[in-house]
Amino acid sequence: TLALAIFSSNAISSVAYATEEILLVLILAGTAAVAWSIPVSLAILFLVAVLTVSYRQIIYEYPEGGGAYIVARTNLGEVPALIAAAALMIDYVLTVAVSVAAGIAAITSAVPVLFQHREALGLIAIVFIVVMNLRGVRESGKFFAIPTYFAIGALGLMVAIGTVRSLTGSNAAPALPPGDRQLEGLTLFLVLRSFAAGCSAVTGMEVISNGVKAFRRPESHNAAVTMVWMSAILATLFMGISWMAYHYGVLPKEDETVVSQLARLTFGTGTIYYMVQIGTMLLLILAANSAFAGFPQLSSILARDGFMPHQMASFGDRLVFSNGILILGFFACLLLVIFRGDTHALIPLYAIGVFVSFTLSQAGMVLRWLRKKGAHWRTKLAINGVGAVTTGIATVIIASTKFMQGAWIVFVLVALLIMMFRNIRSHYRAVAEQISLSRDARPPRPRRNIVIIPIGGVNRAVVRAVDYARSRGGDVRAVLVDVDKEETALVEIKWAQWGCGVPLIVLPSPYRSILGALLHYIEEHLEKDPECWITVVVPEILPARWWQNILHNQRALLLKAALLFKDRVVLTDVPFHLTR
Amino acid sequence: TLALAIFSSNAISSVAYATEEILLVLILAGTAAVAWSIPVSLAILFLVAVLTVSYRQIIYEYPEGGGAYIVARTNLGEVPALIAAAALMIDYVLTVAVSVAAGIAAITSAVPVLFQHREALGLIAIVFIVVMNLRGVRESGKFFAIPTYFAIGALGLMVAIGTVRSLTGSNAAPALPPGDRQLEGLTLFLVLRSFAAGCSAVTGMEVISNGVKAFRRPESHNAAVTMVWMSAILATLFMGISWMAYHYGVLPKEDETVVSQLARLTFGTGTIYYMVQIGTMLLLILAANSAFAGFPQLSSILARDGFMPHQMASFGDRLVFSNGILILGFFACLLLVIFRGDTHALIPLYAIGVFVSFTLSQAGMVLRWLRKKGAHWRTKLAINGVGAVTTGIATVIIASTKFMQGAWIVFVLVALLIMMFRNIRSHYRAVAEQISLSRDARPPRPRRNIVIIPIGGVNRAVVRAVDYARSRGGDVRAVLVDVDKEETALVEIKWAQWGCGVPLIVLPSPYRSILGALLHYIEEHLEKDPECWITVVVPEILPARWWQNILHNQRALLLKAALLFKDRVVLTDVPFHLTR
Ligand SMILES: [K+]
Ligand SMILES: [K+]
Ligand SMILES: [K+]
Ligand SMILES: [K+]
Ligand SMILES: [K+]
Ligand SMILES: [K+]
Repeated sequence: TLALAIFSSNAISSVAYATEEILLVLILAGTAAVAWSIPVSLAILFLVAVLTVSYRQIIYEYPEGGGAYIVARTNLGEVPALIAAAALMIDYVLTVAVSVAAGIAAITSAVPVLFQHREALGLIAIVFIVVMNLRGVRESGKFFAIPTYFAIGALGLMVAIGTVRSLTGSNAAPALPPGDRQLEGLTLFLVLRSFAAGCSAVTGMEVISNGVKAFRRPESHNAAVTMVWMSAILATLFMGISWMAYHYGVLPKEDETVVSQLARLTFGTGTIYYMVQIGTMLLLILAANSAFAGFPQLSSILARDGFMPHQMASFGDRLVFSNGILILGFFACLLLVIFRGDTHALIPLYAIGVFVSFTLSQAGMVLRWLRKKGAHWRTKLAINGVGAVTTGIATVIIASTKFMQGAWIVFVLVALLIMMFRNIRSHYRAVAEQISLSRDARPPRPRRNIVIIPIGGVNRAVVRAVDYARSRGGDVRAVLVDVDKEETALVEIKWAQWGCGVPLIVLPSPYRSILGALLHYIEEHLEKDPECWITVVVPEILPARWWQNILHNQRALLLKAALLFKDRVVLTDVPFHLTR
Repeated sequence: TLALAIFSSNAISSVAYATEEILLVLILAGTAAVAWSIPVSLAILFLVAVLTVSYRQIIYEYPEGGGAYIVARTNLGEVPALIAAAALMIDYVLTVAVSVAAGIAAITSAVPVLFQHREALGLIAIVFIVVMNLRGVRESGKFFAIPTYFAIGALGLMVAIGTVRSLTGSNAAPALPPGDRQLEGLTLFLVLRSFAAGCSAVTGMEVISNGVKAFRRPESHNAAVTMVWMSAILATLFMGISWMAYHYGVLPKEDETVVSQLARLTFGTGTIYYMVQIGTMLLLILAANSAFAGFPQLSSILARDGFMPHQMASFGDRLVFSNGILILGFFACLLLVIFRGDTHALIPLYAIGVFVSFTLSQAGMVLRWLRKKGAHWRTKLAINGVGAVTTGIATVIIASTKFMQGAWIVFVLVALLIMMFRNIRSHYRAVAEQISLSRDARPPRPRRNIVIIPIGGVNRAVVRAVDYARSRGGDVRAVLVDVDKEETALVEIKWAQWGCGVPLIVLPSPYRSILGALLHYIEEHLEKDPECWITVVVPEILPARWWQNILHNQRALLLKAALLFKDRVVLTDVPFHLTR
């Protein structure tokens, strides 16, 4: 079905890098340690199973969409909810960066000359995804279905052939690449670290629970079925790839991914091999793409609660959506540049955010069942309890083993984001207080409005401004600063003809400062009548081309800057449009 | 006198690099070729003499200041004048970049550890000069006099001692630095190239003729006397340094200037040596500084003729001055960064601009005498004729020998600047035509003004905007877009209390687009009455901190953008200032 394609690319695409990340850690203790990849992979398989069962319950309980933020907010309170929100935001950025980096790695494995350009290729890919999303391609389901199924088919074929052969053929001994490297001991810490690295395999499993609303009726049922299918595919491919890598003794290389090596072994370097690589790349690009749907959605939920700018709340709005896409794209590019487009460098930051949100979701569900009870609540409690404990332990393992490699950055960012969320909300609260109308106050009495048109000469732009000012009535006068007697006399003569009956006031300017004289005049009136409004009507020439703006209105700009913080002064530009 | 100090730093400071530039070219043909530095220096001495005599005539003829632009404009016409203006502008930027680079080289010669930081030091120096100029230190004459005389004294002492010793001591043989480099033949082209490089010695000689007005009465006489003194000092120091370099066999080194080597030879590496280096640096910084006085002045003259933005015309204006300083500083920094703070890399671009302006000035004077005649006009014609021919030949030599090394950039820039000048003027002419009032036209008849206050709710910011709009009269109405029936009903109830009697119009919004509904309403009114004004009064929340702006007014911003190019629509923001 289409839903499977749309929601599963993020989760399933992780098989492209998860096995490799496990091996990369184990290899530090030598080739013998590589055998540990099988138990580690089995542990992650257990995680997949636990997450599938526990997320099914969230899907049924939150048919409107049960992201970690919502589950945490409704069950755990504000602080856990904000932690979940911050973790998810960071996770979206990392999903884009990691998936694109891994997608480019799939291509550079097939075409090694491109390896040195991976950073640039990654940036191009992100920009491509951003542009596609800005143009609104994301909705078309078929756009997703074909590459997803193509990739699943290609990888599935590889795993099937490889596994069958492995059961009939012989086990090849893994060979360490040349070069004397210092081996680490095969400690428990190292095994835990490889487990933490492998946890990248389950990232993206939460996506279905966020989007239950988008499924066909009955939504929860269909979503739950899709979840099982997705998990089954993920588990099969991941375990198959881990087994094959172990069986054929494939080890990570700097310039070729493990999946690419396996595909070469299985199919030889021919058409099918290239199909597998292209399929993998497409799947990863779609995974990156899925974050561009999720990020604005989360922002809009946060905005509705006052934690993000209000204007992001109207989710349907094209412009709001575009903002979210641009922000996400920008940060993903930034990460890609900082980490030179290297998947392995990005992975230590990944997963931690996802697991924090997993744990908070599951813990929230535990509290929910304890409070709400209902049918079979004990079973449900047990399931989510197991989920919470399992993901909690995984989170602690990931955080502690990866802390120095970069996970600390995530913690710092989470803290900063929470501060931002709270600052934004407290600002909105302060504003609401300041602009609220008190019950016993009365509407203001009418006040005087003095309208000033500062002029430097008489031309069509000025006449237009005078015409405008006069059309609204009020106490209108034009004001000329006298810097040149002759010039002033000329203006006065012209004014008699063109002034539309509006009086012209000539201000003396002892220091030849036009701006100073105008400000002085305005301040005088503000003092004289502490109630009055002052409207400054500025005749403004609007050029036909943008660069011509620097040739005009500089004085008007200064005047505006000087008046901006005067409370009772209101500025009105009357534009005169030039045609060339 | 003070005038000598203020106007001569630019010209005299060139001795810090001119000899070195000559040697750098000759050395390409081996140590034997270095002897050619003496005839080349003598040729440049001849140039100094010619320029002194011809510029004296400009000084007497243009007591108001006779920059190349003015001389060319009054005698040769627009195109030569614009060429001169463009050449001068580029020359100002280069004067700053070259002088600062050379000044830093004087310091890094004395303190070699700083050599690797020369680019950063150069940028710091430019920023320092910019800040000093923005704060207005440039007027204080003593600030100039002390370092200038100090530097002239130090360099003069060195030249005096060195020359006397050279006439009594023996001639040391110059030794090429180790390393097998390909020697070029000692061709005529190479000698001409070294002459072209040495022409940097006369840059800055035009400064006095620009600033005749600033001298004491009788201005022209005093300026002419100062010019002779300046030329004499320049000639003595330049020839002395060239002679000493030849006599002692000093050759350019990458990390130490020729002047520094000579000072070490003369005084040993002691206090006096450091004084010479510091003096040289100060003189060069003052030379850079002099460009910051000249550039805004030229801009203002060009602005008065309509070739630069009008606002630059009012030369006395602090702000205008600041703009010029910042622009000059920016481009000088840019050059310094592009050429890595290396004097030798900048030199090929330098001098060409100055010589173009020299030639145009002299040619302009030739035409002037031919037309105006007057007393002794034949002698005057002959003098400026020699000047024009000499500088013309030098210009051709500089342009042809340095063309590939970078002089072509100057020609491209000159062409671009001329295009810019002409574009600006033709724009101003088009504007003047478009805004001029025709004789037989009449002032417009009064028109209707419909005042619209778009609101989303009722709060103090809205009430304030309504209060403002009502104070001016006209046809005022608040407009609410109905996106939520319940919300709309609430607003209507509140409006009854707070609306100040202004009618509230509720617009239907079939597509839930607030902006669309507002635009539609406005366009309808514009069509209905093709004469009317429409005023849109926008209640705007002004936050206390700048970053909070992104939390507000996004919708207002969109509305403004959409209305900007509607001819009869005028926008008025009524600010509501938040206090926290
Ligand atoms: K996954
Ligand atoms: K993923
Ligand atoms: K994810
Ligand atoms: K000079
Ligand atoms: K100079
Ligand atoms: K100069």
